[in-house]
Amino acid sequence: MTQLKFNHHLLQQEVRFGTGDAAKNVKEAVEALGATRPFLIASEREEELAQKVTNGLELAAEFNDVVMHVPVEKAEEARKAAADAQADVLISIGGGSTTGLAKAVALTSGLPIIAVPTTYAGSEATAVWGMTENRTKTTGTDPQVLPKVVVYDSELLSTLPNDMTIASGLNAMAHCVDTLWAPKADPINRSHALEGARLLRDGLAELQETGSTQAREKTLAGCYLAALSFSSAGSGLHHKICHVLGGTFNLPHAETHAIVLPNVLRFNAAAGERAHVDRLAEVFGTDDAVTGLEALYDAIGAPRHLAAIGFREADIPEAVERIVAAAPKDNPVKVTAENITELLKNAL
Amino acid sequence: MTQLKFNHHLLQQEVRFGTGDAAKNVKEAVEALGATRPFLIASEREEELAQKVTNGLELAAEFNDVVMHVPVEKAEEARKAAADAQADVLISIGGGSTTGLAKAVALTSGLPIIAVPTTYAGSEATAVWGMTENRTKTTGTDPQVLPKVVVYDSELLSTLPNDMTIASGLNAMAHCVDTLWAPKADPINRSHALEGARLLRDGLAELQETGSTQAREKTLAGCYLAALSFSSAGSGLHHKICHVLGGTFNLPHAETHAIVLPNVLRFNAAAGERAHVDRLAEVFGTDDAVTGLEALYDAIGAPRHLAAIGFREADIPEAVERIVAAAPKDNPVKVTAENITELLKNAL
Repeated sequence: MTQLKFNHHLLQQEVRFGTGDAAKNVKEAVEALGATRPFLIASEREEELAQKVTNGLELAAEFNDVVMHVPVEKAEEARKAAADAQADVLISIGGGSTTGLAKAVALTSGLPIIAVPTTYAGSEATAVWGMTENRTKTTGTDPQVLPKVVVYDSELLSTLPNDMTIASGLNAMAHCVDTLWAPKADPINRSHALEGARLLRDGLAELQETGSTQAREKTLAGCYLAALSFSSAGSGLHHKICHVLGGTFNLPHAETHAIVLPNVLRFNAAAGERAHVDRLAEVFGTDDAVTGLEALYDAIGAPRHLAAIGFREADIPEAVERIVAAAPKDNPVKVTAENITELLKNAL
Repeated sequence: MTQLKFNHHLLQQEVRFGTGDAAKNVKEAVEALGATRPFLIASEREEELAQKVTNGLELAAEFNDVVMHVPVEKAEEARKAAADAQADVLISIGGGSTTGLAKAVALTSGLPIIAVPTTYAGSEATAVWGMTENRTKTTGTDPQVLPKVVVYDSELLSTLPNDMTIASGLNAMAHCVDTLWAPKADPINRSHALEGARLLRDGLAELQETGSTQAREKTLAGCYLAALSFSSAGSGLHHKICHVLGGTFNLPHAETHAIVLPNVLRFNAAAGERAHVDRLAEVFGTDDAVTGLEALYDAIGAPRHLAAIGFREADIPEAVERIVAAAPKDNPVKVTAENITELLKNAL
């Protein structure tokens, strides 16, 4: 065993978690920040829900023109509207794109964000922002864009379609698994990753069986821990692969992560202790981690084939070339064109 | 299972962990803070070590008069010295009393702290400060006193006497265990508690066997996670008991925690799932948590009897009365005068 060396930045954030408590928690958070002119960001699709959650608050203004991938023009519009309204706090209610827009406003204005997620995306737990201009995505990290408060209410996620819940829950699971061998893996993010994986496994399996509130709460808490682990551990092999598949072949984000995950786990499990997969087996209560993850996939009917989301065998060589170039140098199993080709064939 | 409700404040802190890297990490941390006039706080006993760690830094001044429990007069002296020196950062090198003195200075000056622990006390991970005046201790919580940077270097702990390592390592273990059923237990602090317990168990057992650097690193990382978990979860039954024994009967801190812990674990284990002790059994790799903890105690020769540190059978009634009054209302097993008497008799 090598010696332990790491540098970990814990970030300041308040998490208020309670089913049915979103409106109360948002109101208390606004008051605790001493803010009086909240600026609401929510897509038109979330309009009704957003009204419920901000019921009892006097809004300075609201912005509903939320577009995927945060185009720079929309960010500028929202920034101007927030400034015109003399906003002193941003309340974002929605999925990753909504949180992303609020981050774009916070980036230039320094306004605090209260994020109320309505999906399992996890963006609310990171200081990463992203914007697109001329079809090119720019991303960056700035502590200023990390929401000061996250308000979790599992009721807000109760109408998400089942397949979206599964794909984004497994996307979160991928964050946990990839953290175990990521470049900046350490005992702190490992603790988040393993507890997150356990909550996600239990939550997703129980959601499928019972659809209970408790199951949704576990899934949601697991997603938060997953995002927390990933934001400090950085991208491991799994994320590098999915980044290439998403960026070059335009595959859908969450499904790609869900499909690729068991293949990367099998790949790195060969490295044994170095990859910490034994810890994951313990979480799953199985002899080995791959069996445990496969059992979960079977139980919840998870997507398994890249071919079903538009990836073709002919794409493999280009993908392999890009993945080999991008793979972390210290991945527990040395990455080669051969073994990545094999991995992608299995995932296809 | 009840629904999940919690409010968790994650605090901002940078952790730099590396054996032999303390001087380099302190220097980098000073530079990253943009500070040029560091004020060193270290006891005379730590003088040589402190010189090594601050080698290459130009100190604005240093303060060596570190006294247990941070008397207010000493805090005032240190505050004045830091102001006179126009310090822009505090570097504390030492155990809990040294970190505590730096916190007292930060409390009024707002200066950032770089904490370099030389014991397993864990104070560096919390926003709690304490001072004594006329033999009365006052404590409080203020984000300002949380060290901005913690520099961990296991070499600085390599000369700690074995019995101190065991007692303070088990004090940290008690933080982890007590977090599982503490009033503000949640999935975030549970993740820290369980990973902390695992690192402490492995670290303490391996330290006893091999005395290796890796074992010391595990113990140190475990102590950090333990302090992190405790600082957000609050005091459970274990801490309430130890607080009474320490405060009323003046028993030594770490030893008291070490001795009381298995008794409280046995007490709460009766509540089963509600107390999350099954998770602890998994950490220990045993059928039940109590067996696992006892095995660790046997392996490392942990202290077991309150009688050996000055507690007497005649003290039990007063202790019971105070403990029953202070015990958390929602402890997994209902606390009564009878069962606490029994617990203390076993611990005696």
